[in-house]
Amino acid sequence: MTSENEFQSKLLESAVTELSRLPGVGRKTALRLALYMLRRDEREAVALGQSIIDLRRGIRYCSECHNISETELCPICADSRRDRSKICVVENVRDVLSVERTGRFTGLYHVLGGVISPIDGIGPDRLEIASLVSRVSANPEIDEVILALSPTMEGDTTAYYIYRNLTQNSHENLIVTRLARGVAVGNELEYTDELTLGRSILDRRPFDS
Amino acid sequence: MTSENEFQSKLLESAVTELSRLPGVGRKTALRLALYMLRRDEREAVALGQSIIDLRRGIRYCSECHNISETELCPICADSRRDRSKICVVENVRDVLSVERTGRFTGLYHVLGGVISPIDGIGPDRLEIASLVSRVSANPEIDEVILALSPTMEGDTTAYYIYRNLTQNSHENLIVTRLARGVAVGNELEYTDELTLGRSILDRRPFDS
Repeated sequence: MTSENEFQSKLLESAVTELSRLPGVGRKTALRLALYMLRRDEREAVALGQSIIDLRRGIRYCSECHNISETELCPICADSRRDRSKICVVENVRDVLSVERTGRFTGLYHVLGGVISPIDGIGPDRLEIASLVSRVSANPEIDEVILALSPTMEGDTTAYYIYRNLTQNSHENLIVTRLARGVAVGNELEYTDELTLGRSILDRRPFDS
Repeated sequence: MTSENEFQSKLLESAVTELSRLPGVGRKTALRLALYMLRRDEREAVALGQSIIDLRRGIRYCSECHNISETELCPICADSRRDRSKICVVENVRDVLSVERTGRFTGLYHVLGGVISPIDGIGPDRLEIASLVSRVSANPEIDEVILALSPTMEGDTTAYYIYRNLTQNSHENLIVTRLARGVAVGNELEYTDELTLGRSILDRRPFDS
């Protein structure tokens, strides 16, 4: 059989092709998903397809923090109860959700849209760094910027670049902080890598009971 | 935050919920897929959503063999070059595609829609067994039915049930066959399980060079 009529159905072929564009989905998995949807209620399959279309068509980005939003300002930026003096800088939308789930941060966010990575051709100009710097310098009420980036080479480079830019272009009272590094809560010490354990000794804190 | 506005967007929430209904997709993966689609071209995301809707709305089942089809008869049943004297009985649509890919079968198919499995509440009446028996008895040109079912307890039970029904209800010249069982091509003998190896000795064939 030729590959054109591999599935004996153009509709199935097309669904498999589109599904296999998703990350981590090969043609075998795509076929499994497509056949699964054929076995389900039509209503359910249509709801899935429509939700993807609606999502892509309806979602925009917050003009202030670049988080996803259905309106000009995202719900967090629009929420008057949030502490407007603290900005948490994250790599992407998923990290906003992660920090929100901790329930430990009540300020606003700034989503960079990635980290500096020369190997992937991502320079500072591809990220929302200039908008962060102008946002901070235009809002004297902001007194702290928390760099909540991954403790990787790229994350550290990006954090340093932002730190330099912020301190050169902002008011003097601004504090720039980063996430604490140390042993993960609930992890056995013997399985903690040396770099993390070493950092957790350097960053040790007074014992409070 | 309450779980209702976990994603700060009803559109995202809805897409994640629908995606996480797929087999093997949890909410974390669903979120990853949804955010991936947000980063892609609108055209691409809409094409994916639309292909799922079109698939579910456009696909029907072949009235003859119960394979998926976009027309009354599937392309295989409608193909006059296929050998109409041989019927290959398979569990599902995926198995049709698998057998087709081998290029070793030129006959027609019959898709059961599952195998007998009392534990899952699937009896013979839930499967396309009666339609197979009447199809074979109504077409004297059919001289062989190949039971291409998985060599599992359920597959074997189903094969035996079909075999009994076919031999009681069909013309005398009908041959019922099953797939050969033996060592997998390309596999080391030492990693072949005992049952399969034992079966391959019982089913040994004359050596042909």
